[in-house]
Amino acid sequence: MKLITFTQNGVQRIGALEGTKVIDLHTAFVAKLRSEGKLRASQIADAYIPATDMNGFLQGGEESMEFAKQAIEFALNNESAISLVFEKNEVKLEAPVPAPGKMICVGHNYREHILEMKREIPEYPVVFAKFANTVIGPEDDIPFYPISKDLDYEAEFAFVIGKRARNVSQADALDYVAGYTIVNDVTYRDIQRRTIQWMQGKSVDGTAPMGPCLITSDELTNPSGLEIVLTVNGEERQRSNTRNLVFSVQYLVEFLSNLMTLEPGDVILTGTPGGVGVAMNPPVFLKDGDTVRIEVDGVGALENKVKEVSQVLV
Amino acid sequence: MKLITFTQNGVQRIGALEGTKVIDLHTAFVAKLRSEGKLRASQIADAYIPATDMNGFLQGGEESMEFAKQAIEFALNNESAISLVFEKNEVKLEAPVPAPGKMICVGHNYREHILEMKREIPEYPVVFAKFANTVIGPEDDIPFYPISKDLDYEAEFAFVIGKRARNVSQADALDYVAGYTIVNDVTYRDIQRRTIQWMQGKSVDGTAPMGPCLITSDELTNPSGLEIVLTVNGEERQRSNTRNLVFSVQYLVEFLSNLMTLEPGDVILTGTPGGVGVAMNPPVFLKDGDTVRIEVDGVGALENKVKEVSQVLV
Repeated sequence: MKLITFTQNGVQRIGALEGTKVIDLHTAFVAKLRSEGKLRASQIADAYIPATDMNGFLQGGEESMEFAKQAIEFALNNESAISLVFEKNEVKLEAPVPAPGKMICVGHNYREHILEMKREIPEYPVVFAKFANTVIGPEDDIPFYPISKDLDYEAEFAFVIGKRARNVSQADALDYVAGYTIVNDVTYRDIQRRTIQWMQGKSVDGTAPMGPCLITSDELTNPSGLEIVLTVNGEERQRSNTRNLVFSVQYLVEFLSNLMTLEPGDVILTGTPGGVGVAMNPPVFLKDGDTVRIEVDGVGALENKVKEVSQVLV
Repeated sequence: MKLITFTQNGVQRIGALEGTKVIDLHTAFVAKLRSEGKLRASQIADAYIPATDMNGFLQGGEESMEFAKQAIEFALNNESAISLVFEKNEVKLEAPVPAPGKMICVGHNYREHILEMKREIPEYPVVFAKFANTVIGPEDDIPFYPISKDLDYEAEFAFVIGKRARNVSQADALDYVAGYTIVNDVTYRDIQRRTIQWMQGKSVDGTAPMGPCLITSDELTNPSGLEIVLTVNGEERQRSNTRNLVFSVQYLVEFLSNLMTLEPGDVILTGTPGGVGVAMNPPVFLKDGDTVRIEVDGVGALENKVKEVSQVLV
């Protein structure tokens, strides 16, 4: 499935993308249960496929995933008095996981990016954090606040946890991955570098465009070998392949779950390839009106425009 | 108020501490509303003082705080068929904010700690993250996982956001602070230092004992001038005063809210004084059975025992 979050008529819902069609998963599941004569249809749907909460849906694990597939099939094959299916252009796509409990970023994970930043191949993954305030959707603009001039992009292949994970081995790791998405780890580069910890340049509101969908790991079964390309206004800036990751998805699940409990809805950004703006000679940063597009094989394309916004102390 | 989270008979509740008495805030507010003949007592209480969710309560802002005070007064002065008040020793105290949306840590913020770590007084706050998986309560043991031998303590005075904050000036900062608590920023020191970003040594499960309470900012009106002392098995290791913070609570609210939107229930750890174990000569780390106690004027004492636990790959 291509899981999404979308807004329709001001209401946020979780859904699935099938071609140009968007299925409202909760409403479709309620309709299916009602068609089976279930009097507790709404409550059962709340439990397995909550209307708005992607993290809650992911907590349901394989059971909820299976029910979602049934709901999609029902919606596409049955008439309903209530709208279960929309055209993609009738809704606004939001980030598939709008409120991750954790956002863990891996730095220095593509060999060529490590070299362009003049750093050594690390023995351990370098990890740092973003928070949920950074998440915006595939149809949102990237806000460019007047706190810096050095706004930069970082194309990232990301995975989303689907099952509580603690001390999981690499061999079992993919069982704990709900699926994959794309995140642009937008960075205020000078703010990142003004102290020895990067987080402040990575935690500004709106610096994690995510989407367009969460492709489930039963469909995208191998996270290696995926081409990842970033363009700015159509000009290619970053290109690599997830096979060049120093630390693979499986390695990261083992490594991180050896430190901490990973929960459904946690999003892990696997790092960015070479070609970031700050490493160009001379450095080139993003500006108002620029369009940043990231494509990853099998996941899709995430495209956002940069938009200057004002900021005043209150 | 001294706001707490507690568990009684396996059920988690939010409450307030009055001397040795614990008031169940939700149940007390329901009882008060019922005594006024309100037929929607339960629903109104859910809205303003949810039974278990401290973040939800804090979202209610001043209105919820005012209702909580009324609930406490009602509980202490009225008989009730349902238990509204417990003795402290009948319940288990949990972390006052068990699931912060963000946990932001400030490094290098006490002058003498900066000097003992052989670093310079920073121009900007150094910030990094912990996540909610690290939070444990004042009656929990600090789990010591066999992933390192270098377990260290860091006494921290922490503040909790009570109102959504974006671009807030220092002058208005304290209006956005719900209150204060104590956090031990437990650190696996070698893991912190094996890469250039500290988060991995700070993000292990159970590395943020928090409590005993959240003292509200209407009672603790000045976050400066508070003595902070940490002992290990009764031996003093850290002592300073929050007036020695390089970046004050007010400064941090302005600084952080200039980057990101702070939400009710976000917890900001203001940094640790000199005297951490790794800076002793020779370094002394925590071991199984050690008792770490942190006292902060006006907030109380947070005491936890270190307990070795096993860890096996699944």
